[in-house]
Amino acid sequence: MTQMEAAKAGKITAEMKAVAEDEHVNVQTVRQGLASGEMVILKNNRHAISKPVGVGKGLRTKVNANLGTSSQKIDIRYEIEKAKLAVSVGADTIMDLSTGGDLAEVRRRIMHAVPVVIGTVPLYEAVIGSIHSRGALIRMTSDDLFEVLERQAEEGVDFFTVHCGVTQASIQRLKNQGRLTDIVSRGGSFLAAWMKANQKENPLYEQFDRVLDIAFRRDVTLSLGDGMRPGSLRDATDRAQVEELLILGELTQRARERNVQVMIEGPGHVPLDQIRTNIQLEKRLCSNAPFYVLGPLVTDVAPGYDHITSAIGGAIAAEAGADFLCYVTPGEHLKLPDLEDVRQGVVAARIAGHAADIAKGLPGAAEWDAAMSGARKNLDWNKQIALSMDPEYARRIRDEGNPPADETCTMCGEFCAMKIAGEVFRPC
Amino acid sequence: MTQMEAAKAGKITAEMKAVAEDEHVNVQTVRQGLASGEMVILKNNRHAISKPVGVGKGLRTKVNANLGTSSQKIDIRYEIEKAKLAVSVGADTIMDLSTGGDLAEVRRRIMHAVPVVIGTVPLYEAVIGSIHSRGALIRMTSDDLFEVLERQAEEGVDFFTVHCGVTQASIQRLKNQGRLTDIVSRGGSFLAAWMKANQKENPLYEQFDRVLDIAFRRDVTLSLGDGMRPGSLRDATDRAQVEELLILGELTQRARERNVQVMIEGPGHVPLDQIRTNIQLEKRLCSNAPFYVLGPLVTDVAPGYDHITSAIGGAIAAEAGADFLCYVTPGEHLKLPDLEDVRQGVVAARIAGHAADIAKGLPGAAEWDAAMSGARKNLDWNKQIALSMDPEYARRIRDEGNPPADETCTMCGEFCAMKIAGEVFRPC
Repeated sequence: MTQMEAAKAGKITAEMKAVAEDEHVNVQTVRQGLASGEMVILKNNRHAISKPVGVGKGLRTKVNANLGTSSQKIDIRYEIEKAKLAVSVGADTIMDLSTGGDLAEVRRRIMHAVPVVIGTVPLYEAVIGSIHSRGALIRMTSDDLFEVLERQAEEGVDFFTVHCGVTQASIQRLKNQGRLTDIVSRGGSFLAAWMKANQKENPLYEQFDRVLDIAFRRDVTLSLGDGMRPGSLRDATDRAQVEELLILGELTQRARERNVQVMIEGPGHVPLDQIRTNIQLEKRLCSNAPFYVLGPLVTDVAPGYDHITSAIGGAIAAEAGADFLCYVTPGEHLKLPDLEDVRQGVVAARIAGHAADIAKGLPGAAEWDAAMSGARKNLDWNKQIALSMDPEYARRIRDEGNPPADETCTMCGEFCAMKIAGEVFRPC
Repeated sequence: MTQMEAAKAGKITAEMKAVAEDEHVNVQTVRQGLASGEMVILKNNRHAISKPVGVGKGLRTKVNANLGTSSQKIDIRYEIEKAKLAVSVGADTIMDLSTGGDLAEVRRRIMHAVPVVIGTVPLYEAVIGSIHSRGALIRMTSDDLFEVLERQAEEGVDFFTVHCGVTQASIQRLKNQGRLTDIVSRGGSFLAAWMKANQKENPLYEQFDRVLDIAFRRDVTLSLGDGMRPGSLRDATDRAQVEELLILGELTQRARERNVQVMIEGPGHVPLDQIRTNIQLEKRLCSNAPFYVLGPLVTDVAPGYDHITSAIGGAIAAEAGADFLCYVTPGEHLKLPDLEDVRQGVVAARIAGHAADIAKGLPGAAEWDAAMSGARKNLDWNKQIALSMDPEYARRIRDEGNPPADETCTMCGEFCAMKIAGEVFRPC
């Protein structure tokens, strides 16, 4: 029984209880959210994980960290280090996007080392398998693809990105309008190349029932991928992107009828003033399915700082209703992330999500900030460090400044406003 | 004649021309903005600088970098390095907030080394002078304070932060309501301590005409400081903060009658959903005076990452109408900034400002992003680096990844979506 099936039948599962407890919300709220599809619980029913992760309306904004090998760099131990670091600085989930080496082995070892919710893009393994076994990505068969989906579902992968909306129709919309950066989704580009060479429809769309069968069996949540996401501000909210969203909305409905959990992936590069519109569109067109966004990046011109361009967009998106933020690392657009990139990416996304959670009035969100500010007022440095989003890092930065022995910091030294004002406003 | 006086008289100054050219706007628009007070041009009429800086409605969002010695760390050469770096990565102005060593000498040397618009908080020099010459900050006389203002105006300082709104009335409002973090403005805390000990009104408020006389002579722009800015989300938009804004609104009107240019300083720590309200309040209460904000920081809990917490708030603020962003460095709340902090702080604020400028449709803003995305589509790395907000840093980050010799990067290697999609969508 999937979480959605149980929820519709009025049953409370252990996973619903765990999510409700973790989020300080009523378990019936969780059950109703799952039944309506406004919430999902990421957990393959064969995967032993430390805790299931709820995503959707009324829940804390979640953060995903991408990692994985590339054909340029294959070092499984380093990817495991990244996964551990990501979780230690607060990532809720990990996506293994490996494209180099023995992909099944990489995934198995990451899942073994880090027992958290894991997502994948099964298409990558199918495409790379075809290149190795058949000599070209375009020789992949739809059976090749579905075999990978099945195998990964049996292995315990909790959510799949499936680019079902890259169809002949959405590609035609793209061609009709023209785009500055065409397709920037790796999976989307693979499918477009395959479809063009084979003159066929996307198998993930054409055989969507087969996708649903596989997902249903292990309660894999489908993350309907945005192969048409804009890769530049100029392409944002264009007809190709909206066509794909229309398709994903229809597929969401079909998935729910089969009790398969669904979330929707979203852009991408989006001007600040179009972000709210994008969130509202997704919620309307896809019947309030949880929205999982990459960024959005609010400018194209800051490579090296894309954790910041996306934290700005992510905060606005999450306040407007996005539920799940995929981190973007500083070096996105420049290189595969290293450990420091992973840390910066996760924390930037958590800042965005937390700022939105405060604005949305989520239970406990503003209280954390008040506790920190109380510690700051009291010049209690140990408590400030402990309450920091990334305590280890905050400690390191403070120590770099050679802090004075007294309670101040090197910013103001003896001229500390907190200290001076503390004396002015001390209760008599 | 001040810029405002000239503007009201219908005269076009060299500074107006320079600003209009720099911003790609009509010079009459600049003149009208100056006449109404919706715009200011930061330039002391005795200061030889590389270019004057316009701040206000319809102009590019500007970025200020704070630097300066503290009693803990006095190294003028290092502060000059910071100033040079800040300008090289795109800061429009520098504020010298030194509180350690020979303050006049520090300022003179920074101004000599870096010929850009410079701001100060003259109160610091007056207070520290009193501590040295009279033994305590509370022994400062109002003449001490005005002598410093005069001297700094004659030296060529372009704008002054003056905390005129920390008055007996606003302090009483603070006491009536109660606050989690009282006063976090250093200048504000100095004044509150002085006022309490001396049982007197704030001289910058009580003798505001004297402030205006000094500012008028050298066309120093007054940056009416927010001594009551919230230092925690919980204190945001409270009665003390709004009382101060009411006072600053009245002083704005008095300054304009005397043809003194004015901008208003703003918060601080503000929840994401209160930022727009804060901007609108300032614009209404202070007759559309340019708004110079510190952050706003959208959460209190991320020390070590406060360039990000403030880039989120700054972008939303600037889109809503804030005109000038004071950078916040990663280590704010932890330590005095080092060179890397300065870089990260300036670029984070520039990203916020630029994202807002795109949303506001400012001339040239979106075109920059389109040019970058075109270079990205063409896998033209040299052009991408050149078009980056911080080219040196982007180059460094790319090189860290040991980029392959071909046109791809280590993120996707041979599986580059741009490359694959480029082939799919190549015009036949």
